[in-house]
Amino acid sequence: MLDWKPRRPDMLIDPFGLGKIVLDGLVFRQNFSIRSYEIGADRTASIETLMNHLQETALNHAKSVGLLGDGFGSSPEMSKRNLIWVVTRMQVLVDRYPMWGDDVQVYTWVSASAKIGMRRDWLVCDGKTGETLARASSVWVLMNKLTRRLSKIPEEVRGEIEPRFLNSDPVVDEDNRKLPKLDDNTADIVRGGLTPRWSDLDINQHVNNVKYIGWILESTPPPILESHELSSLTLEYRRECGRDSVLQSLTAVSGASIGNLGNAGDIECEHLLRLEKGAEIVRGRTEWRPKHAKDFGIVGHVPAEND
Amino acid sequence: MLDWKPRRPDMLIDPFGLGKIVLDGLVFRQNFSIRSYEIGADRTASIETLMNHLQETALNHAKSVGLLGDGFGSSPEMSKRNLIWVVTRMQVLVDRYPMWGDDVQVYTWVSASAKIGMRRDWLVCDGKTGETLARASSVWVLMNKLTRRLSKIPEEVRGEIEPRFLNSDPVVDEDNRKLPKLDDNTADIVRGGLTPRWSDLDINQHVNNVKYIGWILESTPPPILESHELSSLTLEYRRECGRDSVLQSLTAVSGASIGNLGNAGDIECEHLLRLEKGAEIVRGRTEWRPKHAKDFGIVGHVPAEND
Repeated sequence: MLDWKPRRPDMLIDPFGLGKIVLDGLVFRQNFSIRSYEIGADRTASIETLMNHLQETALNHAKSVGLLGDGFGSSPEMSKRNLIWVVTRMQVLVDRYPMWGDDVQVYTWVSASAKIGMRRDWLVCDGKTGETLARASSVWVLMNKLTRRLSKIPEEVRGEIEPRFLNSDPVVDEDNRKLPKLDDNTADIVRGGLTPRWSDLDINQHVNNVKYIGWILESTPPPILESHELSSLTLEYRRECGRDSVLQSLTAVSGASIGNLGNAGDIECEHLLRLEKGAEIVRGRTEWRPKHAKDFGIVGHVPAEND
Repeated sequence: MLDWKPRRPDMLIDPFGLGKIVLDGLVFRQNFSIRSYEIGADRTASIETLMNHLQETALNHAKSVGLLGDGFGSSPEMSKRNLIWVVTRMQVLVDRYPMWGDDVQVYTWVSASAKIGMRRDWLVCDGKTGETLARASSVWVLMNKLTRRLSKIPEEVRGEIEPRFLNSDPVVDEDNRKLPKLDDNTADIVRGGLTPRWSDLDINQHVNNVKYIGWILESTPPPILESHELSSLTLEYRRECGRDSVLQSLTAVSGASIGNLGNAGDIECEHLLRLEKGAEIVRGRTEWRPKHAKDFGIVGHVPAEND
């Protein structure tokens, strides 16, 4: 199922947790203990928690190599030019959500992405067994924080960041299916009047990327949230959202009848967050598997040690 | 300013961070490193973060002494009787908010509170200097989780918890001023239509205590949030709030003209969270001091080392 392989022999991350992990300085690791306030109604870490840990690890990676200028994740040459990194795409696959008290290890590294961007990947492992819990891949581009326009990577910035690039394939196969633009006719659920809370804002008074997940879940039918768990998430960030924005969250469900979601097998949803005035903020796709589906699998499985 | 003294000579917490800390087994300590996603627009930890750390430390304290039954914070004898702890009152005083990357140490202990309850106190210190960052005190009573009625402490439960009580004064002087019941006439700001997000729910599908702070801030005038920082918080929890509740947040400002909050000195607010149907959920009082007020003080102060 997991066919990702690093290309450099000196950097081996065994996705099945059986081998040893060798770091070559390009991969950064941070350990997290899952805290009580990071788990949800299921007693497992929420997707927001997972994405918070990805963000924290990425920032500490940048910090550890001195590429953290006057803002979050800005290099000195970027700061000079008022450039900041903005995420345009994020994909997360979750195999298993950790519980309160579990230790997880988050690995992250950056690679080139086409000519104008940077890819950042993450691998989340169980701290005890090494089992892969989640994988994520993201694409980042530069934006001028004054003009809010996207920018090519200036040579001086490239010089700072390129030595840090790991030559590797994405840890998640890119989901190339087009994300459709939902509207009132194609969506099954539309929830309006969503506004940022004060605590949703980052130091730039913009809504933090992770907070969008919460709004996407606002229009996800409750029977899905109750009976299923999120297994895959793809987000395309299109526009910033500030403190005075009023949003609508739209969701279309496929792969299951809207009247019988609780008993459905795998479910796929498409999402749109837009301003009430119309501009698109985020398009997304989520995939959901029935809760405990994996436990049922384990019940019928004879552990190898007992063979 | 801080006149709290522990009564037991074998348990010395020096509030000014100059002395050594001696634990006698009744005080539990947990260290936290402030993470990027725990800070707000000010680059400092938010009040929610601080309260999350208090909650986590309290739960791990209970866990470490084996008083964590089938739920959060329930002892075995409590679980037998379907009793759970519910918080009725919480007071927090914050001297300084830590920044991203700062290490904080949270100390917590429990004491008797009148005949029917338990008091839990916390002291939050800077991990490097030992400086007191915050102090908090809370009162808890038992509730039957089936009937949702409050209960006296059964003898068997008392037997479990009393050996853990520390005989000490509250770390925060109780604010005995009555919290008024605000209404549409006495409130300066009323914000309605507030609903729990899926991620606000705990494992009992109730809104976690900490989440109420976010709603209280929803009706706090933005000029206060921008120019002031929360220095003191008192909450009286009156009723639970479930996943389908729709709330209103009311705030009345005193100590400053509502038209000139940004330039005001210390400000005091009174708050009410209520169901749109009318029932009270939480009454509260917050105190705010101008941001950077302390920095100005430091500018005019010659450090002792240079004397």
